[in-house]
Amino acid sequence: MKSLGIGLIGTGFMGKAHALAFGAARAVMGDVPESHLAVLCDTPKEKAKQMADQFGFAKCTDDWTALVSDPDVDIVSITTPNTLHFDMAIAAIKAGKHVYCEKPLALTLDQAREMRDTARKAGVKTMVGYNYIKNPAFSHACRLVQNGEIGDIVHFRGWVDEDYQADPALPWTWRAKLADAGLGALGDMGCHLVSMAYGLAGPIDSLIADMQTIHTTRPLADGTGRAKVENEDTASALVRFTNGAHGSLSTSRSAWGRKNRLAWEVHGTKGMLCFDQERMNELHLYRNSGDKAQRGFTTILTGPAHPPYGEFCPAPGHQLGFNDLKVIEASALLRSIRDDSTPYPDFEHAYEFEKAIHAIAISAKSGTRVSLSEV
Amino acid sequence: MKSLGIGLIGTGFMGKAHALAFGAARAVMGDVPESHLAVLCDTPKEKAKQMADQFGFAKCTDDWTALVSDPDVDIVSITTPNTLHFDMAIAAIKAGKHVYCEKPLALTLDQAREMRDTARKAGVKTMVGYNYIKNPAFSHACRLVQNGEIGDIVHFRGWVDEDYQADPALPWTWRAKLADAGLGALGDMGCHLVSMAYGLAGPIDSLIADMQTIHTTRPLADGTGRAKVENEDTASALVRFTNGAHGSLSTSRSAWGRKNRLAWEVHGTKGMLCFDQERMNELHLYRNSGDKAQRGFTTILTGPAHPPYGEFCPAPGHQLGFNDLKVIEASALLRSIRDDSTPYPDFEHAYEFEKAIHAIAISAKSGTRVSLSEV
Amino acid sequence: MKSLGIGLIGTGFMGKAHALAFGAARAVMGDVPESHLAVLCDTPKEKAKQMADQFGFAKCTDDWTALVSDPDVDIVSITTPNTLHFDMAIAAIKAGKHVYCEKPLALTLDQAREMRDTARKAGVKTMVGYNYIKNPAFSHACRLVQNGEIGDIVHFRGWVDEDYQADPALPWTWRAKLADAGLGALGDMGCHLVSMAYGLAGPIDSLIADMQTIHTTRPLADGTGRAKVENEDTASALVRFTNGAHGSLSTSRSAWGRKNRLAWEVHGTKGMLCFDQERMNELHLYRNSGDKAQRGFTTILTGPAHPPYGEFCPAPGHQLGFNDLKVIEASALLRSIRDDSTPYPDFEHAYEFEKAIHAIAISAKSGTRVSLSEV
Amino acid sequence: MKSLGIGLIGTGFMGKAHALAFGAARAVMGDVPESHLAVLCDTPKEKAKQMADQFGFAKCTDDWTALVSDPDVDIVSITTPNTLHFDMAIAAIKAGKHVYCEKPLALTLDQAREMRDTARKAGVKTMVGYNYIKNPAFSHACRLVQNGEIGDIVHFRGWVDEDYQADPALPWTWRAKLADAGLGALGDMGCHLVSMAYGLAGPIDSLIADMQTIHTTRPLADGTGRAKVENEDTASALVRFTNGAHGSLSTSRSAWGRKNRLAWEVHGTKGMLCFDQERMNELHLYRNSGDKAQRGFTTILTGPAHPPYGEFCPAPGHQLGFNDLKVIEASALLRSIRDDSTPYPDFEHAYEFEKAIHAIAISAKSGTRVSLSEV
Repeated sequence: MKSLGIGLIGTGFMGKAHALAFGAARAVMGDVPESHLAVLCDTPKEKAKQMADQFGFAKCTDDWTALVSDPDVDIVSITTPNTLHFDMAIAAIKAGKHVYCEKPLALTLDQAREMRDTARKAGVKTMVGYNYIKNPAFSHACRLVQNGEIGDIVHFRGWVDEDYQADPALPWTWRAKLADAGLGALGDMGCHLVSMAYGLAGPIDSLIADMQTIHTTRPLADGTGRAKVENEDTASALVRFTNGAHGSLSTSRSAWGRKNRLAWEVHGTKGMLCFDQERMNELHLYRNSGDKAQRGFTTILTGPAHPPYGEFCPAPGHQLGFNDLKVIEASALLRSIRDDSTPYPDFEHAYEFEKAIHAIAISAKSGTRVSLSEV
Repeated sequence: MKSLGIGLIGTGFMGKAHALAFGAARAVMGDVPESHLAVLCDTPKEKAKQMADQFGFAKCTDDWTALVSDPDVDIVSITTPNTLHFDMAIAAIKAGKHVYCEKPLALTLDQAREMRDTARKAGVKTMVGYNYIKNPAFSHACRLVQNGEIGDIVHFRGWVDEDYQADPALPWTWRAKLADAGLGALGDMGCHLVSMAYGLAGPIDSLIADMQTIHTTRPLADGTGRAKVENEDTASALVRFTNGAHGSLSTSRSAWGRKNRLAWEVHGTKGMLCFDQERMNELHLYRNSGDKAQRGFTTILTGPAHPPYGEFCPAPGHQLGFNDLKVIEASALLRSIRDDSTPYPDFEHAYEFEKAIHAIAISAKSGTRVSLSEV
Repeated sequence: MKSLGIGLIGTGFMGKAHALAFGAARAVMGDVPESHLAVLCDTPKEKAKQMADQFGFAKCTDDWTALVSDPDVDIVSITTPNTLHFDMAIAAIKAGKHVYCEKPLALTLDQAREMRDTARKAGVKTMVGYNYIKNPAFSHACRLVQNGEIGDIVHFRGWVDEDYQADPALPWTWRAKLADAGLGALGDMGCHLVSMAYGLAGPIDSLIADMQTIHTTRPLADGTGRAKVENEDTASALVRFTNGAHGSLSTSRSAWGRKNRLAWEVHGTKGMLCFDQERMNELHLYRNSGDKAQRGFTTILTGPAHPPYGEFCPAPGHQLGFNDLKVIEASALLRSIRDDSTPYPDFEHAYEFEKAIHAIAISAKSGTRVSLSEV
Repeated sequence: MKSLGIGLIGTGFMGKAHALAFGAARAVMGDVPESHLAVLCDTPKEKAKQMADQFGFAKCTDDWTALVSDPDVDIVSITTPNTLHFDMAIAAIKAGKHVYCEKPLALTLDQAREMRDTARKAGVKTMVGYNYIKNPAFSHACRLVQNGEIGDIVHFRGWVDEDYQADPALPWTWRAKLADAGLGALGDMGCHLVSMAYGLAGPIDSLIADMQTIHTTRPLADGTGRAKVENEDTASALVRFTNGAHGSLSTSRSAWGRKNRLAWEVHGTKGMLCFDQERMNELHLYRNSGDKAQRGFTTILTGPAHPPYGEFCPAPGHQLGFNDLKVIEASALLRSIRDDSTPYPDFEHAYEFEKAIHAIAISAKSGTRVSLSEV
C-alpha cells in the first residue's frame, strides 16, 4: 500500500495534535499503514510555512481549497474553528478524500447531517476527534460492561467541566456568539461526554434539560462596552437510554478549578465503574462479589493489560497522555482505510452523539422532554 | 436550669445515636445545659428494658404515649420508622414537650406541614435530624460562601448514593411500599442533600425531575412469589435556585459501592467548594487567586479552626465520626431550649427541605417543571 | 458485677477523651461492664470542679494521691504530661487499682520497665493509650495478614508526621527539654507507629537509625533570648523484624501540612495493605489474584463487616472518629477486668513498643545497629 | 545547522521511546534543531529491519560498531541492557559522537567514572535517561524550592517501587545475576529517585543503608531446579544531605500493586511538596501562610503555567504521558548540541546520582555510614 498523504488544515491545539499523531502512529503501533505529512494549511502563508517546517510537512499553503484538491493528499484533517468544518469537509469528501474532522461536526445538526450523508454517499472514510473514547481505560470500561462484569446498566451520570469561561472579567470573543460558535459548553465539551455515555450505556432515547448563561455579557476587548453572551455556560439533562437506564449529563465551562473534568460513573446491577479524565490512567471498579469485608472500589492503573497501552509502553502505570489518545485515533483511521472497514467514530456515529447536544439545547428552551428520534 | 429529661422512642441506628449524643453533649461542649436519660421506649418491653440498661436510661416503657406524657421527659426524641413520626410528634408537642425528630418529618408533605404548624402554635423547640449539616466541614463551607470567598454562587451539584437496595436478590420489605415508607431514595437520602443545597445555594425556586425504579419487583422473604416495589430507587432533578443559580440533585439507593456518598460541589464566580461525606473530614476549595502556577484544589482537613471540631479534639486531622455530628445536633437543641432561641433546623426548616423532595416526585410524575411555591 | 469507678487524672486532650470513652463504652458496646465517673483530678481545684461538672464526675480533687487511694475508684486513668506517668501509675498499682495510662509509659525505658514489673507483680489490669491500633480498619488489616491474605510479610514502611513543631517562630516550651519531655517526635508519635508495625509485621529484631533537630533553638516566650531544643524533630530507622522482614520507620513533628499522618504500608508475597490515619476509615488492599486487567488497590471503607464498627453504626461508610477509638480501648479494659483476661496493649506490650523508640534514639547517637534484645 | 542524524541501538521499551522522542521533538517544541532517524541497530538483522521500517529509520544494522562509526550518525542513543552501555558509549565517544545513554550509565561506578572522564575529554555532549526529572511537575517543584516557596529544605523522603519481581513464582533471569545486571532495585529504579532527591534537596553527603533479597532463589525457566538471586529486591537508606537536611530513600521491585510509584515529599521550613509518578500530572503543595482555616495541600494540575507542558498542549489538565518526558529529554540534548551548552543530566551528573546507589550497596554490606566523598 502506498503511503497515505496527510493534508492538515489548522495548526492550533488540535492541528498540532493531528500532526504529532500521524507522525507517531506507525512507529507506535507497527500495524498501521504508512503515512506522510504532505500539505499543511494555515493563514497567513508565513504561519503555514513556519509550522510546516516545525511539523515536518512537505508543502504548505494558505488556501484550504488547494489542499483539499492536492493529489498528494489522501486524508484531510480539519482542525479549524467549528464554523469552518462544514465547507471544508464537504469539499474534501467531494474531492474523494478521507476526512478526519474535529468535533463537533458542525454548528447545526442540519449541517452535520449533510456532512454525514455526503460522506456516506461518497464512500470515503471519516473519523471525528472524540479522542477520549480512545483511552485504553475507556475501552476497558466498555469491555467490562459488554462482558457483564457489572451486570445490566441501570444508571449513568456524567460531567464535563472546565473553567476557561469562569472568569467574569474575560473579554467577549467569538466563542460567545451563536453564529460563530454555535452551542457553548455543549459543543465544546458536552458532546465528548455524550460519546462516552453512548459507549457505556448505549443510545439516548429522550431527555429533558436546562441551560444557563452565567455571565450574560462580557466586556469588549477594546474597552468600548459590553456584548452579549449568546450561548450557554452550563447545560444539564436528565436522560433516558433506550435500554431503560436513566441518568444525567452536565457540563460547565465556568467551573473554577476544573481543567478537563470529563468524568462519569456507570451503575450496573452487579457493580459500578467510575472515571475522571483528570486522572486519565485510572479506572475505578466496584463489584458486589467476594468477601464483603474486602469489597471496595479498585483503582485500576492502565497498562499492557489494557490495549493498546502496551504499544506505547510495555510497563504498567507509566501513563499515557492526551496526545497519545490522538495517536490511537489517527491509527484507527489509517487502518480503516487500509482494511476498507468502518472507523469508529465516523460521521455516522458523531451525528448520533451530536443529536444529543442539540436535543439538550432544544429541551432547555422548550422546557419539555425531547425524544431523540424527533430531533 | 434544671436538667432536661430525655425521652427516646426507638433503639435502632438513630435511637442509639440519640442516646450517645445526649450522653456526650455536655461533656464535649461544656456550654450545654445538663440533660439526663429519663425514659426509653421500644417494643417489646423486654427490648426496652435491655436497651435502657445498656444506654443508661432511668426508666423504660413499651408505650410511647406514656413516654410522651411522662413528667420526667422534657425532650421527646423520635427515631422510629418514618410512618410513626407524625402521631408521635403531634402527641409530644401537644404534651408540651420539645421534639427532636429524625428526618424526614413525615411520609407526606401535608403531615409535615401539620407537624410544623402544630409546633409553631405550641411554641416548643423542635429539631430534625439533618445531621450532615452539623459537620464542621459543612459549617465552614457555608461560612466561606457567606464571606464571598468563592464569589456569587452560580451552580450547585449534589449526589447522595448508597447501595442498600442495589442487590436484585434482596427480599421485598416495607421499604418498598408507599404506604409504609413513602418516598424511596428521596426520603431516605435525598432530603439530606437538599438540606445541604439550602445551606450553600439557598432555597430552590423550581425544578424538573425524573425517577426510576430499577428493581420493579422483589422476591418475598417467605419464597411465595414477588411483590411490587412502589417507590423510587433513583431520582434526579434539574433545579433553579431563587438566587438565579442552576444545578442538579441526584440520589440512588442502588448504587453499588457507595456507602454514604453524600457529595456536592458549589460553583462560584471566584472559586469552587467540594465535599464528600465518605471523607467527611475534608473540604476542597479552589480559588481563582494568586499565582496561576500554584493554583489547585486545596484539601482542608478539619480541625480546631473549624468550630466546633475543637470541642471534640484540640488536634487537627484527628477526625470526627458520624456519631459526633449527632452530638453537635443534640447540643444545638439543648442550647436553644436554654436560650429560648430557634434551633436549626427545626420543623420550619425541615418542612422547606422536604418540600423539595416532594416536588421532585411530583415533577417526575408529571414530566413538567414544578415551582416550589406551588407544592 | 458492681459498677467500676473511674478515677481520671487530667482534663486535657486525653483527659476529655477518657471521660467520653468511659461515658459511652457500655451504651455503644452493650457487652461491657458498667462503670461510673467517680473522681476527677486536675489543678487548680477550681479547674477540677468545673471539668467534673462538665464531664459528669461525682467528685473532684486537686490531689492525685487522694484519687489514687479513693475507695470509689477501681480504674485510674492517667492523662497527665508524660513525666508524671511513672509516679502516678506506681502509686495506683500499689493501691490495687487497675491503670489506664496514656502513652508513652514513661520518659525512660527503665521507668517503663519498673511500671511493667510493678503491674505484673500486683496482678492488676493495665491498658496503654495506643488507640490507633483499636481502629476497625487496623484490626481488619491484622486479620488479613494473619489469614495469609497478602502472603508472608516481607517489608513494612511507616511514617507518622505532624506539624505542631514545624513553625520556626514557635516559642520554646517544656516539650523541647529532655528532662521534662524525654524523647521528641519519637515519644509523641513514633511509638504509635511502632505499635502498628508490631501488629502487622511482629517484633523488631534490630535497627539502625538517625535523628535530627531541625530547629535547634527556639525563642523564649518572654522575649529574653533563645533556648536549646534538646530532643529530636525527626527520627528515622531501618528495621529488621524477627520474622526476617525489613522496613523503615520515620517520624517528624515538623512536617508542614501533616496533621496526623500515621501511615504505613505492609508488603506481602501475595499483596499489599496500606493505611493513612488522616483517612482513618479506609484501608487499601492489593492482591495478586484474579484477572490482571482488573487488579489494583481496593479502597475498603470500614463498616459493620469490620468489628466493632457496627456497634457504633449499622451502616457502612458513615465513619468513626478519633474519640470512637478511645471507646473501643476503654471497652477492652473494662472487659478484661470483668473477664480477668489480659487486655491489649497492657504495660507488657507497651514496654515492648517503647523499647523500639529508645533503641532508635540509642542507634541514632551511636551510629551503629542496635539489637532490641540488648536495650 | 544541518539535520542531526540519530543512531539508535536497541528497539525495546527505551528504544521505542527514543525513536518516538526524536520523531516528535521538533514538531512539539519548535525551538529544537532538526534531526533525522539515520541508523537503527538491533539483532538479529531481521528485527533491525522490521523496526527500522516501523520507526522510520533510513538504514539498519545488526552491528553496533558500524552504527557508531557511521558518518550519518551524530548522536548515538544507547538503549541496550545495562551491561552493554559501557563499551558502546566509550566507542561512540571515541568516534566523536554525542551520546544519549539510558540509566544507569554502567554496572559499576568505575565504569561510570571512565565513561564520564572519556566524555569530558572528548568534549561531546551526553545525556542520560533520567526522564522523570524532565516532568514539568518536577521542574515546577524545583523552581518552587529554589524560590524559597517552602523555605529551607530540612527533610526529604522518597520511594520508588514496582512489582515486576514480586511474584515468587517468576523464573530466574539475568536480572538476578550481579555480573549481568549489577545492582537490582537500586540500579533499575533507585537511581531515578536519587536524581529527584538531588534536584530538590541537593547532593547527598553520607548515608547508612540496608538491603534485602526477598526471593533468594528463583525457579529456572527450564524446570531443572532453582538459581540464586544475587542482587537486592529492596534497599533503604537514611541520608544526610550536604545542606544539612536529613531524609530517607527506599526502593523495592517486589512491592505488589506498585507500578511506577516514584514518589517523594520534601519538607521545608515554610511548607511541603509531594509527588507521585503514578499521578505524574499532579503536584501537591502546602504552605504555612494565609488563613489557618483555609490551609491544606493544594493539588496543582500541570498545565501551560508549567513549561514546557504548553508545547504539548495549550490546555491545562489534559495531561502528559511517559513518552512525552522523553521528548523533553531528547529536546534538551538537541538544543545543547546546537547551543554548545551543557545538557542536564549529562554523564557528569549521572555519575553523581549513581554514586549514591553504589554507596547504598556498600553501606548495606558494611553496616556503617558511608560518606559519598569516599565512594
